[in-house]
Amino acid sequence: MIRIAVDGMGGDFAPLEIVKGAQSVSRDGLASIVLVGDVEKMKPYLTDNVNLDMVHTSICVEMHESPSNALRKKRDSSMNLAFELHKRGEVDAVVSAGNSGAAMAFAIFTLGRVSGVDRPAIATLHPRIGEGLSILLDAGGNVDCKPVHFVQFALMGNAFAASVLGIDSPRVGILSNGEEETKGNELTREAHALIKELRLNYLGYVEGTDMYNGRTDVVVSDGFVGNIALKISEGVAELIYAFFKDGIQKSLKAKIGYLLLKDLFKDFQKKADYSETGGAPLLGVDGVSIICHGKSNEKAIRNAILLAKTFVEKGLKESVSETMRDYQSMQRLKER
Amino acid sequence: MIRIAVDGMGGDFAPLEIVKGAQSVSRDGLASIVLVGDVEKMKPYLTDNVNLDMVHTSICVEMHESPSNALRKKRDSSMNLAFELHKRGEVDAVVSAGNSGAAMAFAIFTLGRVSGVDRPAIATLHPRIGEGLSILLDAGGNVDCKPVHFVQFALMGNAFAASVLGIDSPRVGILSNGEEETKGNELTREAHALIKELRLNYLGYVEGTDMYNGRTDVVVSDGFVGNIALKISEGVAELIYAFFKDGIQKSLKAKIGYLLLKDLFKDFQKKADYSETGGAPLLGVDGVSIICHGKSNEKAIRNAILLAKTFVEKGLKESVSETMRDYQSMQRLKER
Repeated sequence: MIRIAVDGMGGDFAPLEIVKGAQSVSRDGLASIVLVGDVEKMKPYLTDNVNLDMVHTSICVEMHESPSNALRKKRDSSMNLAFELHKRGEVDAVVSAGNSGAAMAFAIFTLGRVSGVDRPAIATLHPRIGEGLSILLDAGGNVDCKPVHFVQFALMGNAFAASVLGIDSPRVGILSNGEEETKGNELTREAHALIKELRLNYLGYVEGTDMYNGRTDVVVSDGFVGNIALKISEGVAELIYAFFKDGIQKSLKAKIGYLLLKDLFKDFQKKADYSETGGAPLLGVDGVSIICHGKSNEKAIRNAILLAKTFVEKGLKESVSETMRDYQSMQRLKER
Repeated sequence: MIRIAVDGMGGDFAPLEIVKGAQSVSRDGLASIVLVGDVEKMKPYLTDNVNLDMVHTSICVEMHESPSNALRKKRDSSMNLAFELHKRGEVDAVVSAGNSGAAMAFAIFTLGRVSGVDRPAIATLHPRIGEGLSILLDAGGNVDCKPVHFVQFALMGNAFAASVLGIDSPRVGILSNGEEETKGNELTREAHALIKELRLNYLGYVEGTDMYNGRTDVVVSDGFVGNIALKISEGVAELIYAFFKDGIQKSLKAKIGYLLLKDLFKDFQKKADYSETGGAPLLGVDGVSIICHGKSNEKAIRNAILLAKTFVEKGLKESVSETMRDYQSMQRLKER
């Protein structure tokens, strides 16, 4: 059975919601869980009949601690011990809802990077019109990027779409302010010139609308822009939700209409709810690492663990490594 | 009566939709219109009983022409003649749905910039949870910005919110990947240090969600990020619209539910529809200039003209000029 280490102390609602999410997976026999954290604090939330492994540490990374501080002083934290279990091969993946900057730092420090990757990236999955999902990366890991990092994001996103989503020849685009080659900023223009040379199904520049209209499978941006794209999306969904919620209250007719459309509204809420996806993989580290929303509840943690399991089963890590290896061979051939 | 020049040849559906929009305003006696363009092409769409002034030119800027080309070769285009009418004081504002890069170039070239503004910016209005609207600028005019441009955007956005939206002490923020001072990229960090020194109700960094949750009145970004924020918003709204449209078809129960909630769905569509706002002002040029969506229809043009009228009545241009004058005086005092 696939083994997953869960950072029991990471997240705004840790350890309660984390323990509950982990034991729900364990109870259903879907994965073998190792909960890492303060055993005395986690234990009260465990029911007797669940068979979970635990690794004890009383140290944990705070939600607003600087990643560099955590890296220097918290090597024995629940977060890093989870990565160490992964490094030693005792688990196949790590799930943490803790401080995401610190999780990224420890993942890179402890697991190491895949050869050819300078900057591991957070890849988020987004619903879209029609079938399937779109991938956005980097969704927040790397704020100031160089053009070559866009190349790595494009390759890793392509590997993710192919291996996990099963897309044959993923359509990859750079997120920009217009489709024409004359658009973009200094950074994207240089990145565009580099990505054009890769053997990818590359569309060139794509617009924000293309992330949701089904035109693109992989949307590449730096982490600053990607994070804004992510949060703007959340904001619009919340606005529309509030708009309907408010409108439905206003008349009896509307209330009855809502009752008849209740399933649809619930579906909408589900689509807009981050906890349905659970978390986002950190691509480019030598392992499978899922970074969850700080506000993760039981359901989010459960789904994040199941997502991690899927990534292990589909060979996400191997696919990223292979893609980067091929790319490096090509580069060496060119340099000759 | 307020006089407005309308570029009759600009836009994907010009001249038909432009002429219809202009004459609907004229028919209702809401503003005095000067239609600029090819009279032979516009006339067929004019009904006899509408009293519109026309200025003839057979030259027009193409939708995908480069702004620099237009600027060199199309001084006698419908677009630029509209700005010239404004420059000479014959009209109070200009509305164009043509090539927005060219409109920006001609506005700057012909009207000139407000003293203290290096980069005029496009400011878009967005619905939000609760009352009022949020302003985003720059929404696409200036791709590669310097920190000092953010200062100008913040000041102009503040003047816009105060004069047009009537907000007492507008809350201004820089769009970023998180609220903490340690977030942001190189550009926003320098801009943040400068804007902190202004006498504004400055919140620091704000996130994408804050554009829609009512926390911020003025959201400042460079034109690359701003345009992505705008298009992502469009994309999410379209996704949600498609989701409901699809879901409603699936059962009789849902169809009846929809009929009962029809007004609410229509309201939603209206909120998400760019043509309801009509267009966005170009702040920082010495005049009132509204840039419309290329796909503008009759309603969009009508609303853009009415928006221009409001801006003239509320003294938007004067408010921006005054703000920039005060800022320059402060700067000179500091330098002594």
